[in-house]
Amino acid sequence: MTFRAPVRDLAFALKTVGHPELLARAYPDLDADTVQAVLEAAAAFADNELAPLNRKGDLEGARYENGTVTAAPGFADAYRHFVEQGWNSLSADPEHGGQGLSKAMELAVFEMVHAANMAFGLCPMLTQAAIEALTQHGTERQKRLVLPKLVSGEWTGAMCLTEPQAGSDLAALTSIARPDGQGGYRLTGQKIFITWGDHDAADNICHLVIARTPDAPPGVKGISLFLTNKFEVKDDGSLGGRNSFRPVSIEHKLGIHGSPTCVMAYEDAHAELVGELGQGLAHMFVMMNAARLQVGVQGVAIAERAFQQALGFSQERKQGRAAFADADGMIYGHPDVRRTLMLSKARIEAARGICLTVGVLADLADRAETEDERAAAQARQELLTPIAKAWSTDIGVDVASAALQVHGGMGFVEETGAAQHYRDSRIAPIYEGTNGIQAIDLVGRKVRMNGGETLRGLCGEMAMTAELLTETPDLAPVGRRLAAAIAALERATDWLVGADNIAALAAATPFLKLAGDVVGGWILGRQALAAAGSDDPWLQSKAALARLYASQVLTLAPGLADGLTESGADLEATKAAVLAG
Amino acid sequence: MTFRAPVRDLAFALKTVGHPELLARAYPDLDADTVQAVLEAAAAFADNELAPLNRKGDLEGARYENGTVTAAPGFADAYRHFVEQGWNSLSADPEHGGQGLSKAMELAVFEMVHAANMAFGLCPMLTQAAIEALTQHGTERQKRLVLPKLVSGEWTGAMCLTEPQAGSDLAALTSIARPDGQGGYRLTGQKIFITWGDHDAADNICHLVIARTPDAPPGVKGISLFLTNKFEVKDDGSLGGRNSFRPVSIEHKLGIHGSPTCVMAYEDAHAELVGELGQGLAHMFVMMNAARLQVGVQGVAIAERAFQQALGFSQERKQGRAAFADADGMIYGHPDVRRTLMLSKARIEAARGICLTVGVLADLADRAETEDERAAAQARQELLTPIAKAWSTDIGVDVASAALQVHGGMGFVEETGAAQHYRDSRIAPIYEGTNGIQAIDLVGRKVRMNGGETLRGLCGEMAMTAELLTETPDLAPVGRRLAAAIAALERATDWLVGADNIAALAAATPFLKLAGDVVGGWILGRQALAAAGSDDPWLQSKAALARLYASQVLTLAPGLADGLTESGADLEATKAAVLAG
Repeated sequence: MTFRAPVRDLAFALKTVGHPELLARAYPDLDADTVQAVLEAAAAFADNELAPLNRKGDLEGARYENGTVTAAPGFADAYRHFVEQGWNSLSADPEHGGQGLSKAMELAVFEMVHAANMAFGLCPMLTQAAIEALTQHGTERQKRLVLPKLVSGEWTGAMCLTEPQAGSDLAALTSIARPDGQGGYRLTGQKIFITWGDHDAADNICHLVIARTPDAPPGVKGISLFLTNKFEVKDDGSLGGRNSFRPVSIEHKLGIHGSPTCVMAYEDAHAELVGELGQGLAHMFVMMNAARLQVGVQGVAIAERAFQQALGFSQERKQGRAAFADADGMIYGHPDVRRTLMLSKARIEAARGICLTVGVLADLADRAETEDERAAAQARQELLTPIAKAWSTDIGVDVASAALQVHGGMGFVEETGAAQHYRDSRIAPIYEGTNGIQAIDLVGRKVRMNGGETLRGLCGEMAMTAELLTETPDLAPVGRRLAAAIAALERATDWLVGADNIAALAAATPFLKLAGDVVGGWILGRQALAAAGSDDPWLQSKAALARLYASQVLTLAPGLADGLTESGADLEATKAAVLAG
Repeated sequence: MTFRAPVRDLAFALKTVGHPELLARAYPDLDADTVQAVLEAAAAFADNELAPLNRKGDLEGARYENGTVTAAPGFADAYRHFVEQGWNSLSADPEHGGQGLSKAMELAVFEMVHAANMAFGLCPMLTQAAIEALTQHGTERQKRLVLPKLVSGEWTGAMCLTEPQAGSDLAALTSIARPDGQGGYRLTGQKIFITWGDHDAADNICHLVIARTPDAPPGVKGISLFLTNKFEVKDDGSLGGRNSFRPVSIEHKLGIHGSPTCVMAYEDAHAELVGELGQGLAHMFVMMNAARLQVGVQGVAIAERAFQQALGFSQERKQGRAAFADADGMIYGHPDVRRTLMLSKARIEAARGICLTVGVLADLADRAETEDERAAAQARQELLTPIAKAWSTDIGVDVASAALQVHGGMGFVEETGAAQHYRDSRIAPIYEGTNGIQAIDLVGRKVRMNGGETLRGLCGEMAMTAELLTETPDLAPVGRRLAAAIAALERATDWLVGADNIAALAAATPFLKLAGDVVGGWILGRQALAAAGSDDPWLQSKAALARLYASQVLTLAPGLADGLTESGADLEATKAAVLAG
């Protein structure tokens, strides 16, 4: 089954979610034709250059030999073409060589890249995070000499946070950067899980590393952000000698074998401070928030790819007597198979809509006309980012698993390819902050800290959509169920704002699921409204997708809201010893 | 993390689920001490001999070379010890050399075997299926010469159903068995996905193969069951020459690498009819039903193993400030991690209880005193078998995934071992009838065909438990939620019995989930009742598990029941073309 980037779906999602009318004011050049042209060009690259390498990347993977990493077969050439065609610098500031494109558009392009080849997509994704960090916090020299090379893609970036004892808890890190007496630093330490930390696809690799300084206070406040480059960057921008850091090994992983995940050792490496001393974690969060949203998009992407393959298989595989007569006897004619596929599709569209909405909000937070509009967009973007990350990546795993199941026994055989999606998808709920961390971020910083105000505002807006749906022929059940689900989310929010800390933490994951389920239903409802009255079968199917999602997902919201309020005490009382057999 | 077979959990489950008082009458020798002794001996074997081979089996796997299959390193020796210690023949009829043990007990033993090494467990599991088939349908010669060797484990069995074009739809098979004019047959054809179809761990391998005879009618009625042995069996029981079938290759699979999954070619192989001509599928179902229950047990087993590893990791890994003070600062002290682990544990206990209940019902269907009791047990066993298979194997995948997640980034690295469980678990929802097929079996043959009577009877019995719970201090919320969930299941059953065929097929999977969720809650409620009033912390935790399950799972039942009734028309109307992007 050949992958085909979902241009039509993406264009429809961009048109119907977020605030396209506001976005059009912020990006006047971004008319429908431009959107279509960008999406089609990116789709051609994804389909023809990246997708064919995906299986090879899985089978042969990146290699570590003699202290250096070689990218998976074909990846280095593909990366060069990617850069030559300008896909690396879509949203970067034109001042640094970027194209100043909308972030939402860039996300749409990246969805296609990740779907075609998630292991490949991680390389430019991390470069983009480095671009964000240097754009916001880089020194004049870094902006002049390093940033343009990252924007052009001649050099790539890596985010170096995790250490063996410091994963979710970055405060525990021990890497140290000592002043070299000449305004620079010497960095020593070991970092693990460094995605594309070393490779042979670009001339230089710029590591953004968090580390302590010698006399820094303990904990978070002692952490600063540093830039250290694989090859030294001379004052004229040319490359000098090799810096003293190197990959020690690459991990043998469940999936994304085409992405080298490096253990990096820094031994007195030349490094420069980025931003302010002691602000390393705050600066890193700039990179992490963008990366979190991108990981959410990876969830959508891998789901899309897995879904396409299963849909294709369901139209080629004949087994048993199909109850539906319209499928030439193929298993797409079995109601249970069709239900699996349609529900997968609905969940993909919902997650895609959420991620693109956050992209639009990021654009508006930058460019909306008034300060109030920008602040409102920023608040909602922050609210929805953990949902976009966690909810979409859970869907990535679920849909990859459902797609494998559609293949029956063939799905368990690696040659089929369904298993790769199942394996690749599994990293997304983990990296860039596990989904549990996202849920804690949501209930703590994004809901409780402002008394639930931002979420209540969103609920009010969603309730208006529910009303519209209720008044629309064929969509009334969606409207009623969405309204009930919103009421459940509001009830849970009221409870959450007043709950004690332990009860709130215990409820975090089900609360995030509830919020994602409801927002996803809102997205599908709006898509169905936008499509209502059309006689195009493709548009007509939007109502069916919304109804299926409403009946299978939104119906669960009241129960989710009822149940999430009361586990704190039981969790607290349960010792590990009694759970051991 | 070392695996430790959950003897205490299994003994408690055997004591509290099913109908232990009836079972005690059927198996008078099976007192608590005997149960404990058998479980402990099996646990020792599982922990010490099988578990240590699990990772090696994954890494090195079974090998195919020069037309023969070599079992994974250590597996052949372990199999010999398994047989020597008598674990192969627990429930087989003493007349054929078996030990005549309760099937429920045997399931408990097999759960430990599968948890320790699922790839290994498949070998005796398929032998057991062959034992069932020959016990019920074998000729006198087969019972005399072949069956005892299978019971002793000197020879192993294989089930040979699937062909490339005939997976879920066995009616499409084309293998052919031609009479040889001497009362025997010559078998020709190709079978795929033959688990342990060839290996070097036993002296002979007995293939039970379904095939057509030359003049047989098309479809299901033309299929018969045949026995063909790797080495010919002479009339004195000794082995003759090699039969003309062989493995052509083994599959490169996502998981269970230690289990050789063979493509088998039969070329005019000597074969004997088993049972009656044209009854092959019916006879095969004898084997499949036992195997389905065993696969459900595999779901429980892999969940248990994955859970244990995650629980262990959560007590050794320190990250961040744990909200609960009782965990030495380890991540078990984070409410979200503890919620994940406790909910996993609750779901494992629920699934274990369902599977063992079916085992007890199988025992009672054999041995209960009255014809009525036997018939009732048989009907309920048939009702619960697809639930035991599908619901438990979905939990196997979910818990393996949750356990991987608890490990964070380490979970995605193969060395940690969590990823193997995630990969291994994924086959169980597929083989022995996909979970979609189980759902169709449930709604069609098991519910609609008898007007929902058996399920309504179970609901009545569950409602009495709900009442008891509601009257018990600390368990009242469980009782109320269980009652509401049972009411939802009854409502869904009423609808299902009256629904048209397409609506029923469209609802099959959510209906099975609903039924499994409710029955699982009933199991946990009964365990909590059995533990009520104790001051043993382990028993006290049963109430907390039931409450957590009630608040996180049973609360969803009304929504599930509401939503499953209405997708048929939308599914029917949705063409594949509109789902493609």
